[in-house]
Amino acid sequence: MINVVKLGGDIIFNKKLLISSLKNFSKLDGYKIIVHGGGKIADLVSNKMGYNIKIINGRRITDKTTLEIVVMTYSGLINKKIVSKLQSLGLNPIGFSGADGNLVKSYKRSIKKIDYGNVGNLTINSINTDLIKSLFRIGIIPVLSPITHDGNGNLLNTNADTIASYLSISLSKTYKVILSYCFNKLGVLKNLKDENSSYYKIEETFFQKLKNKKIINKGMIPKLENAFYALKNGVSKVTISHPNYLNHPTKKTILCLG
Amino acid sequence: MINVVKLGGDIIFNKKLLISSLKNFSKLDGYKIIVHGGGKIADLVSNKMGYNIKIINGRRITDKTTLEIVVMTYSGLINKKIVSKLQSLGLNPIGFSGADGNLVKSYKRSIKKIDYGNVGNLTINSINTDLIKSLFRIGIIPVLSPITHDGNGNLLNTNADTIASYLSISLSKTYKVILSYCFNKLGVLKNLKDENSSYYKIEETFFQKLKNKKIINKGMIPKLENAFYALKNGVSKVTISHPNYLNHPTKKTILCLG
Repeated sequence: MINVVKLGGDIIFNKKLLISSLKNFSKLDGYKIIVHGGGKIADLVSNKMGYNIKIINGRRITDKTTLEIVVMTYSGLINKKIVSKLQSLGLNPIGFSGADGNLVKSYKRSIKKIDYGNVGNLTINSINTDLIKSLFRIGIIPVLSPITHDGNGNLLNTNADTIASYLSISLSKTYKVILSYCFNKLGVLKNLKDENSSYYKIEETFFQKLKNKKIINKGMIPKLENAFYALKNGVSKVTISHPNYLNHPTKKTILCLG
Repeated sequence: MINVVKLGGDIIFNKKLLISSLKNFSKLDGYKIIVHGGGKIADLVSNKMGYNIKIINGRRITDKTTLEIVVMTYSGLINKKIVSKLQSLGLNPIGFSGADGNLVKSYKRSIKKIDYGNVGNLTINSINTDLIKSLFRIGIIPVLSPITHDGNGNLLNTNADTIASYLSISLSKTYKVILSYCFNKLGVLKNLKDENSSYYKIEETFFQKLKNKKIINKGMIPKLENAFYALKNGVSKVTISHPNYLNHPTKKTILCLG
């Protein structure tokens, strides 16, 4: 059994919550992997460097300077903070970008209406599962930052939710995989103004209805799409919840059943 | 046989030279490891973030913000650039900070006359050679950034020359090790004004004389001390030279014989 745990940018940004999330993660049984984001801290670093973030339709444009900033922030600052904290909790993690060990290979997203810049898209062959199996054999816990590479020397900014989904799917060919998307909310909320109003279970047809009625907000749509994509392609269970519920899923935890 | 190659900050800073160094490295036979610096780029990033670098007696003071900057720069920006370039050259590297896989454990330097801040010192037990052997078995080339950890969740800034020396010594218990310190000079210069005036061979007694006469400059003294320390403790050969001579040591390459 493998737990793939995605820690969102709002968790990374909150020092106390990050530590408690890592403690919960450390108590999970079986093989385990972290995939982390970090957009909020990348924004902070950009600001400190006097560099304006470019956003179109709610998405970051990864020009050359932005790529350098996200590589520094995700694969450097955040990844090594998580790795060193896990070491202090008695685990033995290794932090990865997709270029390390050719763990996640991508191709640069082609330009259609909008040029998103140095952004990587994944395929079903993107994940180097052989390496992950070798790492598990020597007791290593992989910690993935959302930077991938194209094999030609170029790093690419890649959505962490998507990496977590593709990673889970690839590993599900060998192991039973539970994918947990953790963020600083109880779960997917019925009403954004009520923090306790989370759904317990969402089936895909119901999700489509919520989407059509615009009840689910923008950022949650791709996360749920990644979740259903994972479930349809071999992943045993996907949860979307606060990291407090990582070890003890309750009725307050969302279980997406495809 | 293992080649441990240290790439200095002046090589990292020079895009063309970095690429040619990595090409030369890729052609080396046997097991191999890179240890890299990056001080010049960390200075640039500090400046862009409007943060003043603190230097006392020629040494960087690693306060909390400086630690964050060097972790981002060394373990993020530079390390992932090297890793992705090596991937494009057909190698399979994984980039490391010392916290990753507990590869290099250190302790915080105690405060004597000067408080250097979050700086790590090494011991003879700092290097996790078991992990390196496991990585070699699965075809991985380790690329080490000069950040270590204390095991209690703290990252520490550590001299890359010293890491390369301790790493080489630890590996020399199992393998024949050649340690190459590469920088953007022909070698150790007899006359700083003459770029072609490098020594071919320096023995330790001769080094002591040069040191006493203040013929060797400040930055070169700890490098040579690390070199002789390595030679005294099991390393077969140490070279200090331009990376052009990595594959073809000539009379222009310095060989330090202890």
